[in-house]
Amino acid sequence: MALRAAFRNTCTLSGLLCQLSSSRSHGRVCASAVLATQQRSNSTSSKISVDFDQSTGVAVMHMKSPPVNSLSLDFLTEFCINLEKLEMDKSCRGLIITSSLPKVFSAGLDIMEMYGKTPESCGEFWKAVQEMWLKLYSSNMVTIAAINGSSPAGGCLMALTCDYRVMVDNPRYSIGLNETQLGIVAPFWFKDTMANTVGHRNTEMALALGLLYNPTEALKIGLVDQLVPEDKLMATAEQTMAKWLAIPAHARQITKSMMRKPTIDKLTSKREADVQNFVSFITKDAIQNSLRTYLEMLKKRKA
Amino acid sequence: MALRAAFRNTCTLSGLLCQLSSSRSHGRVCASAVLATQQRSNSTSSKISVDFDQSTGVAVMHMKSPPVNSLSLDFLTEFCINLEKLEMDKSCRGLIITSSLPKVFSAGLDIMEMYGKTPESCGEFWKAVQEMWLKLYSSNMVTIAAINGSSPAGGCLMALTCDYRVMVDNPRYSIGLNETQLGIVAPFWFKDTMANTVGHRNTEMALALGLLYNPTEALKIGLVDQLVPEDKLMATAEQTMAKWLAIPAHARQITKSMMRKPTIDKLTSKREADVQNFVSFITKDAIQNSLRTYLEMLKKRKA
Amino acid sequence: MALRAAFRNTCTLSGLLCQLSSSRSHGRVCASAVLATQQRSNSTSSKISVDFDQSTGVAVMHMKSPPVNSLSLDFLTEFCINLEKLEMDKSCRGLIITSSLPKVFSAGLDIMEMYGKTPESCGEFWKAVQEMWLKLYSSNMVTIAAINGSSPAGGCLMALTCDYRVMVDNPRYSIGLNETQLGIVAPFWFKDTMANTVGHRNTEMALALGLLYNPTEALKIGLVDQLVPEDKLMATAEQTMAKWLAIPAHARQITKSMMRKPTIDKLTSKREADVQNFVSFITKDAIQNSLRTYLEMLKKRKA
Repeated sequence: MALRAAFRNTCTLSGLLCQLSSSRSHGRVCASAVLATQQRSNSTSSKISVDFDQSTGVAVMHMKSPPVNSLSLDFLTEFCINLEKLEMDKSCRGLIITSSLPKVFSAGLDIMEMYGKTPESCGEFWKAVQEMWLKLYSSNMVTIAAINGSSPAGGCLMALTCDYRVMVDNPRYSIGLNETQLGIVAPFWFKDTMANTVGHRNTEMALALGLLYNPTEALKIGLVDQLVPEDKLMATAEQTMAKWLAIPAHARQITKSMMRKPTIDKLTSKREADVQNFVSFITKDAIQNSLRTYLEMLKKRKA
Repeated sequence: MALRAAFRNTCTLSGLLCQLSSSRSHGRVCASAVLATQQRSNSTSSKISVDFDQSTGVAVMHMKSPPVNSLSLDFLTEFCINLEKLEMDKSCRGLIITSSLPKVFSAGLDIMEMYGKTPESCGEFWKAVQEMWLKLYSSNMVTIAAINGSSPAGGCLMALTCDYRVMVDNPRYSIGLNETQLGIVAPFWFKDTMANTVGHRNTEMALALGLLYNPTEALKIGLVDQLVPEDKLMATAEQTMAKWLAIPAHARQITKSMMRKPTIDKLTSKREADVQNFVSFITKDAIQNSLRTYLEMLKKRKA
Repeated sequence: MALRAAFRNTCTLSGLLCQLSSSRSHGRVCASAVLATQQRSNSTSSKISVDFDQSTGVAVMHMKSPPVNSLSLDFLTEFCINLEKLEMDKSCRGLIITSSLPKVFSAGLDIMEMYGKTPESCGEFWKAVQEMWLKLYSSNMVTIAAINGSSPAGGCLMALTCDYRVMVDNPRYSIGLNETQLGIVAPFWFKDTMANTVGHRNTEMALALGLLYNPTEALKIGLVDQLVPEDKLMATAEQTMAKWLAIPAHARQITKSMMRKPTIDKLTSKREADVQNFVSFITKDAIQNSLRTYLEMLKKRKA
């Protein structure tokens, strides 16, 4: 429990280790508050803040759960509540997802939700991961990931689930589904989402080796759509959004559904089995031992 | 009805607007007539002429329905009759499809078949579109699109349905499934045909945004196979045809069927539902209003 | 029968004709024998030798059936027995497949197993081809093809069935599924394996035309993963192997199964029908005549 307390919010599936200072993220939140006018509404919860501009119909979701935007149960719950609110607001047509933390977009699933937990807790967590994916992959809004830092494992999944990915061209950032490197396995719908984006063979190699790609490599295989300097990220995301929003919404939404429905239906029809599969895998002694070893390594590195 | 009369044959789904002079297309038709010898047979209907060279076993189908080779019910019916004739003629082994009109291959489905029509007429029209695709995608002949002009929407589908695509390298020509730009939706079998050619992700982006590609971009994603200068188009198509015809026909045909049958079976098994789906979509007030707005815009531009 | 005796082991589906000297392959076998220490075990059968290094957990399978490593029934049987042995040996974690013959990796299926044979023999042969593919495509070991020569038809299939392909960068070597060139057809699971590697459209073109790619072209479409000079081949294969073996085995194996199971299940569920289909095709008079013509051409060229 001491271990869990110490690493709460910092132990993700991705192995990402960041030396973080919270100053920068605070600076950004302030900036967005200053920009808020009567045309903008700011909804802020503890881990995510949403800045919605009614004049453009575009919301920006800032992930701000230090140190690395781990996808914990709490985070995922907030994420889905915010997403659902925007989805039901007819005036909101586009969503840009980005990070308020330095160097990291999201480091992926929170290991602490899987280590030393009851099967019930693990199952509840996994349903929340499924829910995030189902809601985002089938969103009627135009969704753009503005990737301003590393984005391994679940962070990569979140980006892949959007309609478009712009990434900051910083060779120190990386993105990929690197689960096998930690001895665990990306489930079939992570795999399907990646294969829909970069094809079967790239996915086979990427998952087998748990590859993390730098921005140039990610662009080359189509894992992201565009690279920009850090200071051009949000402007580029907004320009791209305007282009997508210029398309008649109804036609675009039907087209999106046509492209993604088979992949979504596959998880929907196997959702409970997928939860059982995850729970029985993650609660295995061997896997729990791997996770402990990994957590101890993280602890040592941090010390 | 006045509107319909005025725009008959000029209002296509693609939004293509061409300033057309018919002189050039007439010039071409004459040229092909001059070339006809006892070895060649010329079958000419009002919208399509077929030039079959028995010495090579290759037919060239010239689309010549001014101003932009709109795929009207009449056009599609003639197309299918010609295709079926060639298919049944054992001496005909290859088919090159090209346009006799300047600047345009085919501008796609004729909007006038969908605007202000009865559900029955719309359904009849849609069956003809299906029939064109089914016959061409499953043809035992080697089929090559010699794309000598813009080829949006249904024109792009026709090209994608061939075995090989050579396009004139003129940056003013474009090709793509741009239906969403007009507020309508490419059906699943348009999508499948494109995905079989350029993969899932390129198709997702292309359909969502209704992208039209210039020849260089089209080559880059594999939407066309080869670019050539305008004066080398037919020679290149013929050389490519010779290469394909050198392969034992039976083995090539079984292989083609193996690659395409799942996609064809999908439409065949859902054909009636696909017609109903189209009819109920296109006869919606909102869609009819979109089409009217679009037609009025075309009328103004032309005036 | 005279014909069959003369061409035994030299008549493959690929049309590969090599002027072969056996000296080089003998040189290699000696070299590997010299390297053998107490840490290595050498299992040698007539057509395949296996060199297993217990210190690394990596086995190297040398195909050495002159002149061109034709996949005869005997060859395939030995191949599967060796593969099964390694698969059951828990200390063996990786397998590199290469050729001990000069200029050729494997020239593919042995035509003599299909020409003038009873339906029963043809069926038995085809089951062995299926078995090779099923075992290799689903192997729990990391499998790397070290392609040191041409690899048409069944030779290409064998390479595609591995996890990774390194090819010698010699423009005289070629690789591809060129079955249609000989008037026969790659079955659906050859097609599926290729499409999983290079996508639908590349596969459609490659199979329709029976394309053989030189190493540069093969790399470009992803048919192979890496090119190296001949003298760097085995070192590169071993370095790549080390990288793959660094991934936790259980996670990698589950991931591999997830990627490949649908393709494997498809053949498993249609295995008997696929045998019947092959037998009824290959025993057709027209196909037997094609094979005879082809064999006679080989005979003349050799004379």
